[in-house]
Amino acid sequence: MTEKATAFVPGHVTGFFSAHPADDPAAAGSRGAGLTLTDGVRVTVRPDADAAVSLNGESLDVPAVDGVLDALGASARVEAESDLPLGTGFGVSGALALGTALAANAVFETGRSENELIALAHVADVDAGTGLGDVVAQARGGVPIRLEPGAPGRGELDAVPARSRVEYVAFGTLSTEAVLSGDLDALSAAGESALARLRAEPTLPRLLSASRRFAREADLLTPRVEEAIETVGEAGGEAAMAMLGETVFALGSGLTDAGYEARACAVHPAGATLELDDPGG
Amino acid sequence: MTEKATAFVPGHVTGFFSAHPADDPAAAGSRGAGLTLTDGVRVTVRPDADAAVSLNGESLDVPAVDGVLDALGASARVEAESDLPLGTGFGVSGALALGTALAANAVFETGRSENELIALAHVADVDAGTGLGDVVAQARGGVPIRLEPGAPGRGELDAVPARSRVEYVAFGTLSTEAVLSGDLDALSAAGESALARLRAEPTLPRLLSASRRFAREADLLTPRVEEAIETVGEAGGEAAMAMLGETVFALGSGLTDAGYEARACAVHPAGATLELDDPGG
Repeated sequence: MTEKATAFVPGHVTGFFSAHPADDPAAAGSRGAGLTLTDGVRVTVRPDADAAVSLNGESLDVPAVDGVLDALGASARVEAESDLPLGTGFGVSGALALGTALAANAVFETGRSENELIALAHVADVDAGTGLGDVVAQARGGVPIRLEPGAPGRGELDAVPARSRVEYVAFGTLSTEAVLSGDLDALSAAGESALARLRAEPTLPRLLSASRRFAREADLLTPRVEEAIETVGEAGGEAAMAMLGETVFALGSGLTDAGYEARACAVHPAGATLELDDPGG
Repeated sequence: MTEKATAFVPGHVTGFFSAHPADDPAAAGSRGAGLTLTDGVRVTVRPDADAAVSLNGESLDVPAVDGVLDALGASARVEAESDLPLGTGFGVSGALALGTALAANAVFETGRSENELIALAHVADVDAGTGLGDVVAQARGGVPIRLEPGAPGRGELDAVPARSRVEYVAFGTLSTEAVLSGDLDALSAAGESALARLRAEPTLPRLLSASRRFAREADLLTPRVEEAIETVGEAGGEAAMAMLGETVFALGSGLTDAGYEARACAVHPAGATLELDDPGG
């Protein structure tokens, strides 16, 4: 057992998806695609008899993190830092679960492989109802395409071989649980059609156009999101809605060109990783 | 078509492997494990009617690169830079093939997915007889375990969830083609046994000990390599032989602690990626 370990997990915005529930949470998940982001979550795990989770110093209840620690038989203090807003479609719960899995395995020397840790975190996020595909995407990095739902060994991934500067604006939260507990048929049909269009041409502009059409067909656009996407388009840019948040993301400087105050980051080149040198103690 | 694109591909040292030839090069490959390295190969592709490949300014014949360009129907100048020594077990030919695939797809807008580009490069490296598993490992990054041989969709990967500083010394070259064209039965039996030991405990120390045993059982050690591995071990470090080169790699400062003049790098957190901002033009 070591004193602590830290993992970084990229943020993840999904542009479109279809939901694939299953009795076995390792087989459940989503098809879809999105971008992993250099803005992400840094998760530090320390052994502690009193388990507790905090994000930016604020205590937080994250069932997916509890699920990961339970699965590893670990009792720990989990401290996370992130600039990403919560509940707005950046995969923060998945990042907390995956970062906890990687760091806790290092601290407690639980001897799991990377795929096993990704699977643990995926199952915990699915069981908690907070995510269906963020974890596997965040483990891969880049611009992941989720071809088949589920944890490693069950699901299947590809990716768009491209990188870009990315901007985003979060107007507000949407409840993943509320959308996922509603009627998923129209949404999933739109998601499958978007996936087919992206697979025919796996490029960033196609990802964004397929995502815009998905948000419209799945009836998920809010007035603020719709206006921002249109304004970016009129300024010659590419924007889409993040699933599931009242959030717009754009390639390059699409949002600032359209007059929005946006945060800027980039497609993250790597999946979730342990930090190499853990400064301090 | 754009003016140029650049990709970075990490170096890759294999610690142990079993060879799995097949009539279909996409299904051929190796099981095994190793480390991807922050020392790698930067590959720039420019459209050019006269196809040519250079490494650090020296013209070079790389059949795997020719195979990739053929598969993409692209005629290009490929310029690579690397600090890694050639022919000493760092997967330079695989890196050249994979970097060319990623950059050429971006330049010529050939519309392939990431898995398709990895498969192209894998097939080209296998067909050229220069590699059996470097490309898929270099596409994943980290500490890849090759569970099943072959390109994406055929092969299967896992990884050791750990990172480390890495040192290496290259004493000389070994011919991959010569070893792979020899009797592979004893080698592959040793490789399968090493894989089973690593899967039972997917940690860096276990990877290094399984690799040492493999090199001994497969009778690949040279006197200089054997001495270096022993000297590092006596100094309390962990070292093994890179497949296939007269090369020793060690965790942390294992080689310098043992008195060797070694190059230092680290486990690379990411797989091969396009560069985000292409400076100059």
